[in-house]
Amino acid sequence: MRSRTRHPPRGRATAGGDELRLLESIREPGDLRRLSRGELRRVADELRHELIELGAAAGGHFAGSLGAVELTVALHTIFETPRDRVVWDVGHQAYGHKALTGRREALARVKHADGPSGFLRRVESPYDVFGAGHAGTSVSAALGIAAALQRRGETARAVAVIGDGGATAGMAFEALNHAGELRAPLRVVLNDNGMAIAPNVGGLARTGQVRGYLEALGLRYLGPVDGHDLDALLDAMTALRDDAGPAVLHLRTRKGCGYPPAEADPFGWHATTPFDRASGARRGGSGAGPPSWTACFADALARLADRDERVVALTAAMPDGTGLDRFARRHPDRVYDVGIAEQHAVTFAAGLALEGLRPVCAIYSTFLQRAFDQVIHDVALQELPVTFALDRAGLVGGDGPTHHGAFDFAYLRLIPNLIVAAPRDERELERMLATAVECGRPFAVRFPRGPARGVALDPDPKPLPIGRGELLRDGDDVALVAIGKSVVAALEAAEQLAERGLSAAVVDARFAKPLDGDLLADVARRCRLVVTVEDHALAGGFGSAVLELLAARAPGVEVRRLGLPDRFVEHGDVDAQWRAAGIDRDAIAAAAAEALGARSAARSRGRLRALSMAAGASDA
Amino acid sequence: MRSRTRHPPRGRATAGGDELRLLESIREPGDLRRLSRGELRRVADELRHELIELGAAAGGHFAGSLGAVELTVALHTIFETPRDRVVWDVGHQAYGHKALTGRREALARVKHADGPSGFLRRVESPYDVFGAGHAGTSVSAALGIAAALQRRGETARAVAVIGDGGATAGMAFEALNHAGELRAPLRVVLNDNGMAIAPNVGGLARTGQVRGYLEALGLRYLGPVDGHDLDALLDAMTALRDDAGPAVLHLRTRKGCGYPPAEADPFGWHATTPFDRASGARRGGSGAGPPSWTACFADALARLADRDERVVALTAAMPDGTGLDRFARRHPDRVYDVGIAEQHAVTFAAGLALEGLRPVCAIYSTFLQRAFDQVIHDVALQELPVTFALDRAGLVGGDGPTHHGAFDFAYLRLIPNLIVAAPRDERELERMLATAVECGRPFAVRFPRGPARGVALDPDPKPLPIGRGELLRDGDDVALVAIGKSVVAALEAAEQLAERGLSAAVVDARFAKPLDGDLLADVARRCRLVVTVEDHALAGGFGSAVLELLAARAPGVEVRRLGLPDRFVEHGDVDAQWRAAGIDRDAIAAAAAEALGARSAARSRGRLRALSMAAGASDA
Repeated sequence: MRSRTRHPPRGRATAGGDELRLLESIREPGDLRRLSRGELRRVADELRHELIELGAAAGGHFAGSLGAVELTVALHTIFETPRDRVVWDVGHQAYGHKALTGRREALARVKHADGPSGFLRRVESPYDVFGAGHAGTSVSAALGIAAALQRRGETARAVAVIGDGGATAGMAFEALNHAGELRAPLRVVLNDNGMAIAPNVGGLARTGQVRGYLEALGLRYLGPVDGHDLDALLDAMTALRDDAGPAVLHLRTRKGCGYPPAEADPFGWHATTPFDRASGARRGGSGAGPPSWTACFADALARLADRDERVVALTAAMPDGTGLDRFARRHPDRVYDVGIAEQHAVTFAAGLALEGLRPVCAIYSTFLQRAFDQVIHDVALQELPVTFALDRAGLVGGDGPTHHGAFDFAYLRLIPNLIVAAPRDERELERMLATAVECGRPFAVRFPRGPARGVALDPDPKPLPIGRGELLRDGDDVALVAIGKSVVAALEAAEQLAERGLSAAVVDARFAKPLDGDLLADVARRCRLVVTVEDHALAGGFGSAVLELLAARAPGVEVRRLGLPDRFVEHGDVDAQWRAAGIDRDAIAAAAAEALGARSAARSRGRLRALSMAAGASDA
Repeated sequence: MRSRTRHPPRGRATAGGDELRLLESIREPGDLRRLSRGELRRVADELRHELIELGAAAGGHFAGSLGAVELTVALHTIFETPRDRVVWDVGHQAYGHKALTGRREALARVKHADGPSGFLRRVESPYDVFGAGHAGTSVSAALGIAAALQRRGETARAVAVIGDGGATAGMAFEALNHAGELRAPLRVVLNDNGMAIAPNVGGLARTGQVRGYLEALGLRYLGPVDGHDLDALLDAMTALRDDAGPAVLHLRTRKGCGYPPAEADPFGWHATTPFDRASGARRGGSGAGPPSWTACFADALARLADRDERVVALTAAMPDGTGLDRFARRHPDRVYDVGIAEQHAVTFAAGLALEGLRPVCAIYSTFLQRAFDQVIHDVALQELPVTFALDRAGLVGGDGPTHHGAFDFAYLRLIPNLIVAAPRDERELERMLATAVECGRPFAVRFPRGPARGVALDPDPKPLPIGRGELLRDGDDVALVAIGKSVVAALEAAEQLAERGLSAAVVDARFAKPLDGDLLADVARRCRLVVTVEDHALAGGFGSAVLELLAARAPGVEVRRLGLPDRFVEHGDVDAQWRAAGIDRDAIAAAAAEALGARSAARSRGRLRALSMAAGASDA
């Protein structure tokens, strides 16, 4: 959100026509603390109503926030936010929190460049105590806050709000276990709706022995409390506030509460596009256009699994986002959902691979960061045939800095034994998956969010030669060396350059590791100017790998690298993000033309210098 | 270990003079299964005796394996290894396992290049089912194996052996929780000695409610059993074997059991140098020589904490290895030991930083890999003043591929907002720590294992200008650009080159990020040849960063990079590892001289070409 809170106009009517007088009077949480319980109940009802209107109009994360309406009202009423520090996990459930902390109107532009983040951001509001985006961090951060406050002798409180899904993350356990040791005055609100994004998994979810679990870790257990009974909630929050801690208040809530379609299918309504409030019918695009990369991946994997019974698939609590729900419709017994547990997912896959299976870990690029060490030690070092299918690679648009897959080339290509590939279209994706499963080596393939290219698929997708790129277009002025989605932009840039009379070769590297040394050195030596393109951070990325190669194989060749600058990219429109990063068609063409111009100027200087050298001057 | 198992000669007398007839007859675990319980007791006693002799003669991880003698004998007796897959965690406790699986004699060379690994390695033995080195992976791997065996309808069993310390790792929780859901026939042996390396921490360790914890996760609990009562153990292992699983057998053991000095101080005897068996006196070096980098770090941090009350320090269960036990002697109330929980450590530190503290996370380079995502999101993105002090950076020698800090420059320099530094001596280390704490920004400083340089410290260590390198020696033929420990080798190489009449500049970059662009571009333009040196992987590392910089700032300058090749480096002597990687003094000098020779040959060709160009030929 670029601008700070503005006070919403009073007496504004909603789309549904209801007057929201009470909610509109809540300019900040302190206003809640002057209300009666009956009025707070009205605020909660109005907030729920507004969140439904908001979802219908703007989409976004939906069902989680509906289920958290009462707990949000109770939290901000009983705790003295922002003096008391409330740390929300992830942010999927925090739209109500945003609305009550001065961002009601702004939420209409959630995830847009001029609106608030879909997650928690410290820069956005003093009520967003700790930034979030990946699950399971809130208890750690709140415990750190609690410990620091205790050390300073302050009476302000630290509260973490975590879902039962987030609590399956290993780091949440680590934090709870440490809290039981440290005895700092930590408070935790466990929002137990039985769901992560999808229905929650894990032994704890099966047994329901939340009290036993928490008490074993040395935490005081309060509850369970119906998280939609506001009276009970206010009492329970008061008890939590007055407990010395560490203590956990266990709330039972219903994801999607208050909107019947979402209550009936909370998984399907975790996030939504705009919809018709009355019918629940989603408003979407035209339905035309190519399928998503995710769907292409799922279908390609399903076809591969048809042919190869060793193929199994894993997700860390994201069967929908990764397309594995689609895969599971054809191969229901070949999917493992391990919970929000990327570290375990990778090492579990290594165990499967050890016994002859060919596991495919479908994990977003950004979430595989959670399992970096496991990829190194449990897969690459042991040379086990695990495939990593990294969806949401590159720039993802509205989900912003915690969700871009901007670092995967860099953090994966440093790992010995690991193959790293990225397809320019879904036909290549299918071949890369076939290659990965066939070759029996550690293999990562990354692909972007959004629609694929709509190209025809190969009826019999053959494995690719590993480390072999493809010269898609020949040329001799400049070589555009790209990978993945950026190959398309590079091809378009080459067209533009041709219109200006400049001859650009275009190479699809296909593999960031191993690079096609022969092809790249050959085209580099011919063109003498290479421009690399990637939807990825420049530091240590794909272009950096090309630079390393050419420094050894074609020294003296000029290399310019296009990619993301060394800063986090905020949320917004993905095409705008590409333009801002200078990796879209126009920017590539401009950079190449500029470099060619500079080179020909330098050449002229070089000729003059050569003439003067030949006339007897020394260059030593 | 380079060669496979050889059968130990029969009737060999130990150093202590005892005949080990029964142990020597155990060529493989199958031999145990033919023995009576009384004979198994003798095997256990002999094995303990031999491990003590081994520790006294060769050192290594010690107390953990002593505490696991009986469970090791019982495991290999009751389970049909290697058909039943036993997955050991880490390997600190697995020397007995190695001895019983054909590696008794080889253990005398443990951690040497010609001996076995100190951890588990699949290439070493079919009994090392899954490689290990970092704690907490065994349950995940064994669960994967169990699931795959179940899928294939095989009757072989999968067993994980994990310590209570390893079980504090978040991924162990993730795996246990998944096991409770999956209902695969997993067996776990929980070796509960109350210790990680140091005394174990965490709420679970405080409450001791292991049964409650495991049952809440949906696992069957067996035990507790005295892990030194072999009869009870054999019965309990049989029950575990015959349980459908998932089930956990809880053993109570004493780390160091059977060697009184180690029983009295199991933390101090976790690992040992060779010692006198009778007195327990350690045999070490002369005691002379400079202090270790670890001690220098601890002392520098303690001095910093004297002056700045915001400074607190964190360890993930390694107070000794990181030097924080030493720090704690001066500042006992300013250390947090969070358990084997690097993810939580980083986010907990972020919470502390949020409230005005200046936390310093003392985590080995290799272990920070576990918290990669948290460094990105919870520290760098939020620009919180957390310092990462990465000990054991670069090549570590005997601990091998799971413990080298070979990737930190690469995985850290890709992170926006993070400063990455490495000192060439302890004086610089102290200044870098002062800089980190003072600047209030996310900051990582990495330093190697082993003795520091022995230089005099600054009585008043001033912060360094961030991103400023230092020209230590001027020259004009070649610029040696190094960082950290490799600066010393580069200075020595410059001396060698001078003896050959070659003039080498030496730059200590100090910061891998941000690089000193002005200094590097200037020296590069003057010398026209740059050789970078790093004790780090070449892919994406420090030299790669220099290459990126010079491609933009000094195009056309030749850059050669010296560092670790793209493969895992096996265990062995650290100096030999430096030589093999070509980053020692001689290799640097040779590489620079060779590049200079090639360049002067190319220059001669260039002059001829310039003459021919001037005579009218075109170069277009």
